[in-house]
Amino acid sequence: MTRIRVHLAGGGGAGVADRSYDILCGPGAADGIGAAVAEAGGRRSVVVADAAVATSHAARVTASLSAAGVEASLLVVPAGERSKSVAAAERLWNELAELAVDRHTHLVGVGGGVVGDLAGFVAATFARGLAVWHVPTTLVAQVDSAIGGKTGINLAAAKNLVGCFWQPRGVLADTTTLETLPDREFTSGLAEVVKYGMILDAGFFNWLEAQASRLVARETSAVTQAVERSAAIKAEVVSQDEFETSGLRAALNYGHTFAHAYETLSGYGQLLHGEAVAIGMCQAARLARLQGMISEEIVDRQTRLLSQLRLPTAAPAGLGSVAELLTVMARDKKSLGGRLRFVLPTSIGSVVLAEGVPEPLVRSVLTDHSTRPAG
Amino acid sequence: MTRIRVHLAGGGGAGVADRSYDILCGPGAADGIGAAVAEAGGRRSVVVADAAVATSHAARVTASLSAAGVEASLLVVPAGERSKSVAAAERLWNELAELAVDRHTHLVGVGGGVVGDLAGFVAATFARGLAVWHVPTTLVAQVDSAIGGKTGINLAAAKNLVGCFWQPRGVLADTTTLETLPDREFTSGLAEVVKYGMILDAGFFNWLEAQASRLVARETSAVTQAVERSAAIKAEVVSQDEFETSGLRAALNYGHTFAHAYETLSGYGQLLHGEAVAIGMCQAARLARLQGMISEEIVDRQTRLLSQLRLPTAAPAGLGSVAELLTVMARDKKSLGGRLRFVLPTSIGSVVLAEGVPEPLVRSVLTDHSTRPAG
Repeated sequence: MTRIRVHLAGGGGAGVADRSYDILCGPGAADGIGAAVAEAGGRRSVVVADAAVATSHAARVTASLSAAGVEASLLVVPAGERSKSVAAAERLWNELAELAVDRHTHLVGVGGGVVGDLAGFVAATFARGLAVWHVPTTLVAQVDSAIGGKTGINLAAAKNLVGCFWQPRGVLADTTTLETLPDREFTSGLAEVVKYGMILDAGFFNWLEAQASRLVARETSAVTQAVERSAAIKAEVVSQDEFETSGLRAALNYGHTFAHAYETLSGYGQLLHGEAVAIGMCQAARLARLQGMISEEIVDRQTRLLSQLRLPTAAPAGLGSVAELLTVMARDKKSLGGRLRFVLPTSIGSVVLAEGVPEPLVRSVLTDHSTRPAG
Repeated sequence: MTRIRVHLAGGGGAGVADRSYDILCGPGAADGIGAAVAEAGGRRSVVVADAAVATSHAARVTASLSAAGVEASLLVVPAGERSKSVAAAERLWNELAELAVDRHTHLVGVGGGVVGDLAGFVAATFARGLAVWHVPTTLVAQVDSAIGGKTGINLAAAKNLVGCFWQPRGVLADTTTLETLPDREFTSGLAEVVKYGMILDAGFFNWLEAQASRLVARETSAVTQAVERSAAIKAEVVSQDEFETSGLRAALNYGHTFAHAYETLSGYGQLLHGEAVAIGMCQAARLARLQGMISEEIVDRQTRLLSQLRLPTAAPAGLGSVAELLTVMARDKKSLGGRLRFVLPTSIGSVVLAEGVPEPLVRSVLTDHSTRPAG
């Protein structure tokens, strides 16, 4: 089991003197939730679980809480991106009110990124802030969304447009929960893993190239190493730039401006998040190439690794016109006064934040639906 | 013009290094909004205004912003407590998305407590946090709700159950806006003013007793002094206990556990907030008296002052059964695991937080619909 610390400055709401917290990473980590909540002074908890894991991982979490003397209720939300909605948040708020949840109750989100983002948002906004813990059970949640305190729900207009920064008290990333994950979900999570290599860690990118076949085969030790390294990179970024002000945390949005536009236009759910990110990273790399920022070789290495990991590398046709995509991208949180901003690679392991990218180049990238040879 | 500082520790989201801010208090304060937002780096703003002030105070605020070179859009919400709803928040979120509002846009709430709480909540939750300014135009907002960063909306189950702590960048309390306030609204605000005297400042309570007739006559200098003193007390409490952890800020809830129950059961709007608080303070004082914590004289002094200020001192019959009131109170944010907590006076200018008050005493207070002689 690996313990990774997220260092945060200052205290916060709900009487928290130090907002720093640990990510506990490895097989069986989820069974530590009861002791962790009890040690933090929690006597009462509400587990918010994805329907897909309600009877499996969520039941384990509830049992761990009860065994530690923490009263636990279970609220189940439907699986899928549609649960990141105002309606789903409102349902949870009302259910918490029905349970007479008070300020000292701890919320525990069990499931993928959807449940984590929703439970985090509801925790941030109920009774002006409840303690929340994340038990991510998908790869994308373990390496990315459960870490760093970004919470949110979608509007019809754009993804994650409503949300708060609300740091969890702790994250328990139990790699055994990944064993039951459908292949497509698992593969989708690998896109964020590749992203860490591309934006910050060339050595990790090389390792991923070398381990691609073991990762596709979902070999336990390779998967565990990938999760630990990714979680550690994310924790370091969040520790240095919690509120995305220095530009460092913004680098994590590599591929995401494109990805969010595809996810928004496909009505959420047709493309998995990681699939959209893989497509977005290919488009961002091509955009950098068109501006002479990187060589064709770097574009190809990224495309090849994503292909080897069974991720898509070009947008399927029919997912919105170029005009629609541009409109949605201008509305993205990351845009500034409607001007497009992109995170673009300058090499493997390094990116910059680019503003004022010429629109014809963006159009060119969006029009290109061809997959490149996967080498 | 008086400048009152709210001192806050640590930085926050949206790149804010120091969250401390000023309350500018006095005639014409609202006209300073444009310069204040421009000085804080704002280039774009959205004014969220109560329909009752959209063409008056909000137009003045918009003009001030434009004159300072800050682009300003205006969004109007219906007057009344019903706008503190999930539906109203969702409408604003969507309108902000339509306006392609980005993270650097400043929100400006113009109106009473309802608009301030709603605009603050929407600012706290859009794009993970927008800068917000408050231009309170009612007495209750100027002396209380605009100061301190509590934001929120109501659920059917309980008032203010959904919300965040989200501090404004500044508050501009323009006492000339009070001149157009209907008498009942103005009077309602005086309840919170009396509250400050009761909980923290016996000298201020004495002053209010001496000035009661001038306040009822809405004499400018008396009103301005009452606003300044109240805002200064609130600012001091928030500076010392921003997140309501030490118990000091909780003292501000004097009368509010009862008040929120009446407001919830009357469907929001039948009783004005301050009217409910006046009733709640009388009930809290009686509850303290029943436990021997204060003399009859203190109960009477408070009742007499509230009566002189034309505030109600007992609940009108028919606003919910005792059982309904108790159920709603148990669900209040301030309750702990369903146990009732009350802020109770120990003298004029001093209160304590009381837990485990015997339920029969609470029932007795709730059953008493008689007004006492107003002296």
